[in-house]
Amino acid sequence: MNLILLFDDDFTETPGKVRLTGRRLRHLKEVHRAAEGETLAVGRANGAMGTGTILSLEKNAVEMAVTLSEPPPEPLPLTLILALPRPKVLNRVIIAATSMGVKRLVLINAVRVEKSFWQSPRLSEENLLAQTVLGLEQAKDTQLPEILIRKRFKPFVEDELPAMAGDTQRLVAHPYDAVACPVGVCGPTTLAVGPEGGFIPYEIDKLKEAGFDAVSMGERILRVESAIPALLSRLYPL
Amino acid sequence: MNLILLFDDDFTETPGKVRLTGRRLRHLKEVHRAAEGETLAVGRANGAMGTGTILSLEKNAVEMAVTLSEPPPEPLPLTLILALPRPKVLNRVIIAATSMGVKRLVLINAVRVEKSFWQSPRLSEENLLAQTVLGLEQAKDTQLPEILIRKRFKPFVEDELPAMAGDTQRLVAHPYDAVACPVGVCGPTTLAVGPEGGFIPYEIDKLKEAGFDAVSMGERILRVESAIPALLSRLYPL
Repeated sequence: MNLILLFDDDFTETPGKVRLTGRRLRHLKEVHRAAEGETLAVGRANGAMGTGTILSLEKNAVEMAVTLSEPPPEPLPLTLILALPRPKVLNRVIIAATSMGVKRLVLINAVRVEKSFWQSPRLSEENLLAQTVLGLEQAKDTQLPEILIRKRFKPFVEDELPAMAGDTQRLVAHPYDAVACPVGVCGPTTLAVGPEGGFIPYEIDKLKEAGFDAVSMGERILRVESAIPALLSRLYPL
Repeated sequence: MNLILLFDDDFTETPGKVRLTGRRLRHLKEVHRAAEGETLAVGRANGAMGTGTILSLEKNAVEMAVTLSEPPPEPLPLTLILALPRPKVLNRVIIAATSMGVKRLVLINAVRVEKSFWQSPRLSEENLLAQTVLGLEQAKDTQLPEILIRKRFKPFVEDELPAMAGDTQRLVAHPYDAVACPVGVCGPTTLAVGPEGGFIPYEIDKLKEAGFDAVSMGERILRVESAIPALLSRLYPL
């Protein structure tokens, strides 16, 4: 936690004063080993960043005086379309994408997504939000990403994706019949990443019909949690 | 497992024939759901890659006829100097680095590495090898990386690192007083990555004395398992 993310409910009636309990309190005590008077990086969800000075640190709550004046980092102008990863890696992938500045993530189905993945409790709204908060706290950002869930590949790609992608560059990470992933495109992009084992040819054809170009990261096949930072770092070098 | 890695012990007396048991047998049955006659990607540790055709698939062993003629992918000309990550992420970090083609990884101490991390059974030679095998099997590579462990920061950086880094470019990922990480250096590089919370100023000074330049990945702070793919992808775009 490199920044403590604050929500509306955290603010008390005294202007500029917050009161935190639960996970963030425990983290302050156990990891930061914070003390009264200490100043830490804070940010308001979807708002400004700044500092918080600990006024009191008690068993059940910490109170801080916060000053918020700096803007959060610029978002990546990128929508990530991701075949639902296995539950074991879903949280890590959301944290990775959020920490890199992705603000729209669409979890989609694909033939090689196992049906059981869709039953995972990790897909609950509550868990998805919790993981994005962890990603923002890691990266020092405040702007919560939107996560959409689309369980039917064909209607999504045919009916919704073209409008969603708008006039952005459209890329699908796919190691076959692909050009090298461009470096430093920097502009608005919609990037699709397949499941373990990749999209099947039918899915690639559908994405190509929707204007997506296949791009490759080289001959090595990466796990999705490595592929996403590698792709984003290449597309947006700073 | 996008490639089955074969070791000398797997080869039977019949030329070109291997016999596998244990983890790889289970994986073939449970994940690949492989059948007799099927052909899969294989590679010999530190040797060539090719295909293996299943001759027999029994309860306790699978036998394959293998043909090995393709070279593995080129290694990254990079040595990764990494402050020992917490045990929970160590395996993932080794897999990530190996899958991206790192062939020399040095795990070092730093002030912000918790002492208890050095007690982890994950530092056993057996576990380190197991993780590198998973990374190679993921990436479709055969060349095993070397993992060195250096528990004392100062003697390592003063006495061993200068010769190890030779005439390579020397970079330390550090977000303060840093220039932007170069894109596509491609040449031989020694890259140092700090612990959670970063190297302390003394450590950065020592690395600078050893010829390391601080480079930044931008204002976002990434977890080590995301930072490594992001850094390597930027330094070596294909």
